[in-house]
Amino acid sequence: MHTILIIGAGKSTSSLIRYLSEKSTPQNLHLIVADKSKAIAQKMLENSDSAEAMELDIFNVEARKKAIINADIVISMLPARFHIEVAKDCLVFNKNMVTASYVSKDMEELNEEVTAKGLTFMNEIGVDPGIDHMSAMKVIDEIKEKGGKMLMFESFTGGLVAPESDNNLWNYKFTWNPRNVVVAGQGGAAEFIQEGKYKYIPYQRLFRRTEFLEVPGYGKFEGLANRNSLAYRSVYGLEDIPTIYRGTLRRVGFSRAWNVFVQLGMTDDSYHLQNTENMSYREFVNSFLPYTPHDSVELKLRLAMKIEQDDLLWDKLVELDLFNANKKIGLKNATPAQALQKILEEKWTLQPEDKDMIVMYHKFGFELNGEQKQIDSTMVSIGENQKYTAMAKTVGIPVGIACLKILNKEITMPGVLRPIHKEIYQPILKELEEYNIVFNEQEKAYKGYNPDILS
Amino acid sequence: MHTILIIGAGKSTSSLIRYLSEKSTPQNLHLIVADKSKAIAQKMLENSDSAEAMELDIFNVEARKKAIINADIVISMLPARFHIEVAKDCLVFNKNMVTASYVSKDMEELNEEVTAKGLTFMNEIGVDPGIDHMSAMKVIDEIKEKGGKMLMFESFTGGLVAPESDNNLWNYKFTWNPRNVVVAGQGGAAEFIQEGKYKYIPYQRLFRRTEFLEVPGYGKFEGLANRNSLAYRSVYGLEDIPTIYRGTLRRVGFSRAWNVFVQLGMTDDSYHLQNTENMSYREFVNSFLPYTPHDSVELKLRLAMKIEQDDLLWDKLVELDLFNANKKIGLKNATPAQALQKILEEKWTLQPEDKDMIVMYHKFGFELNGEQKQIDSTMVSIGENQKYTAMAKTVGIPVGIACLKILNKEITMPGVLRPIHKEIYQPILKELEEYNIVFNEQEKAYKGYNPDILS
Repeated sequence: MHTILIIGAGKSTSSLIRYLSEKSTPQNLHLIVADKSKAIAQKMLENSDSAEAMELDIFNVEARKKAIINADIVISMLPARFHIEVAKDCLVFNKNMVTASYVSKDMEELNEEVTAKGLTFMNEIGVDPGIDHMSAMKVIDEIKEKGGKMLMFESFTGGLVAPESDNNLWNYKFTWNPRNVVVAGQGGAAEFIQEGKYKYIPYQRLFRRTEFLEVPGYGKFEGLANRNSLAYRSVYGLEDIPTIYRGTLRRVGFSRAWNVFVQLGMTDDSYHLQNTENMSYREFVNSFLPYTPHDSVELKLRLAMKIEQDDLLWDKLVELDLFNANKKIGLKNATPAQALQKILEEKWTLQPEDKDMIVMYHKFGFELNGEQKQIDSTMVSIGENQKYTAMAKTVGIPVGIACLKILNKEITMPGVLRPIHKEIYQPILKELEEYNIVFNEQEKAYKGYNPDILS
Repeated sequence: MHTILIIGAGKSTSSLIRYLSEKSTPQNLHLIVADKSKAIAQKMLENSDSAEAMELDIFNVEARKKAIINADIVISMLPARFHIEVAKDCLVFNKNMVTASYVSKDMEELNEEVTAKGLTFMNEIGVDPGIDHMSAMKVIDEIKEKGGKMLMFESFTGGLVAPESDNNLWNYKFTWNPRNVVVAGQGGAAEFIQEGKYKYIPYQRLFRRTEFLEVPGYGKFEGLANRNSLAYRSVYGLEDIPTIYRGTLRRVGFSRAWNVFVQLGMTDDSYHLQNTENMSYREFVNSFLPYTPHDSVELKLRLAMKIEQDDLLWDKLVELDLFNANKKIGLKNATPAQALQKILEEKWTLQPEDKDMIVMYHKFGFELNGEQKQIDSTMVSIGENQKYTAMAKTVGIPVGIACLKILNKEITMPGVLRPIHKEIYQPILKELEEYNIVFNEQEKAYKGYNPDILS
């Protein structure tokens, strides 16, 4: 019998635990789910016989070490900054480890020791990062193996509301940490390269520089640039690629409306507003508009943002109750971002019957045998319900698959890893298909940035 | 004979040194100007007999202490962050001290000891801060003494090019550190209060939220909000004032054009662009615009910023040679702000015959005997030439006056001070009039924010 220790029983672990529970009888697994709160861990387990819940404070060094010593492999589902302590213990006690988080600098520095001991520390094996890496590297490797030369790589992921639950004008609900959505894009310009030209988009232009993408069967989306696309050149072995661009997907029209919040300063998380506890939504909006007491907040906002009276963008703002003088922010010393989050959560929280959706879109431009071609690869995953969301599924199942394949020695590559190697992504992508996480690849002519019609 | 030690002989010390040199014979003064470079100190002295230049590295503790021990009073004209070391020595050796900089937290913490020793550490006695404090407190105290109640305080200062040297479309040249001008307004929202309503302006809206001011004899200016106006409530004893607003002056039209740089991301100083050494001005602009290779940089910029073809704003951009494909940035690893500064310095550097100008505008709204009134107080100072600029004059002369009045015991208040007390500002403002630094005060009806005509 093998013991798998999962540390952290947050929302994103539901599908992981279900996956491993289903495999526990055939594969003779013992599952321990450890969390600061034993009740939360217990709830995640539901009625699994092969699993037990455990109370574990990861800052209690002795308890943490003891739990790790007793495991055959460790999955850390903690917030990313806490992985490193678990990783150091795994190194000492010779345990393999899996996380869904980006490889931190601290984690990277363990690579030499991890490799020397023949251990596998698999990271970035969730959805984004994770499924994006694997599905992209599969196509890139195939192109290269045929002798093709990569010309372009664009990649977009979005966590959205499923079409059947999409009932607001923004076509958006919070499917992960709302705070991260409110402050997304801050802290530096987006950097990427297009046909050899470096491009920079500052935060104040980010939501006005979108591009459209059509996903077969799901309609039109807009993509907005992520912070740093350039770093992916070395990760994906595309050092000389003339075009690389990574972004986030929203439904068309979201960004233009969101830009109103950005421009007015409502997404700022760096200072505190006065008197937010008793501030109405209307006063919140007014605090970012000029003081002209004989004009309405509505008129001042329309003028400042140049919103025409028949623009649907306006209805998006009204739908949020932004001009309500009776509803209160009700938070002490809130930053603009915290106040905005409060307003948005009222409208954008998933309801019990709501389903979420993960959408991924890759574009690969390449030259093969003197011909320029393009492959578009898309994947859509819809959640089952509020517990088994698309987010939990696409994060948890690849983590679970990687864990079992390492345990069963199907994956044996040592080191601090990302799933960018064929021997890793190939078997994992194959098993993901059983869970309906499938990429639809379509080949077409490569047009690059040359429009058909020029005047 | 009294010895005055001036530490630091930067550009802003010219008028200070001339002022003190002129007073040295009648007042029996010995002036020592100490700088890292003796040559720079010597050059500032010109032919003064009563003054000597000295080489001093302020990080050489022994040399610094020795210089301070031998002085009767110390003026620190160093960059603000270096004052504290000088201040600590002055405290130990019982020397009074003068600076033109904002009181830092470190400096503030010396207050108790400075007061206990009966010493005077006068700070914020340049132009802004300095002349602004004194000229504002004079009117505020007068209103209060008459039994008036303050309703509004707005205050604006601008360092600009004098009308006779104003020959570009921006009506602007660099009259102080260009870097500070390029990054001005970043790092937090502007906060102020108008008729009891707190208002916040984020950086991305700062240059679109200006107000106009007319200075008699000098025409129209625009004012844009400074970062924190609220802190001045306690400094000026205006805790309950319903309106307080501080800002910076530019000529009308500057801010709307500058906003193009802000929106495109050209003022960002937080990251480095690729290949800036060989980047042309045109490529610099293009790096902030979408990649559409069949459109010109000009067209893309006009579209992105919605600049109509007959808008004079466009000519401002062209005047800067922004679209020149031959001129190079020529800086390694430049940030956007550094690259922009390079471009602007080519056009906005004061020429040898150019004169600068300091403009100050205060508005005081108050209620007296049941009547609402307003006093507008304005001051304009024009530089003599590139050495004796208006900036050097308005910074240096009040520093010099304060120094002599402390030395002569006309100012004896102890502590870490700002010139906000009547016994300090009154004699200094009086002497400033001899140097043509005079405020023009005009009383008018107070209208507040109530326009005459409402539809």
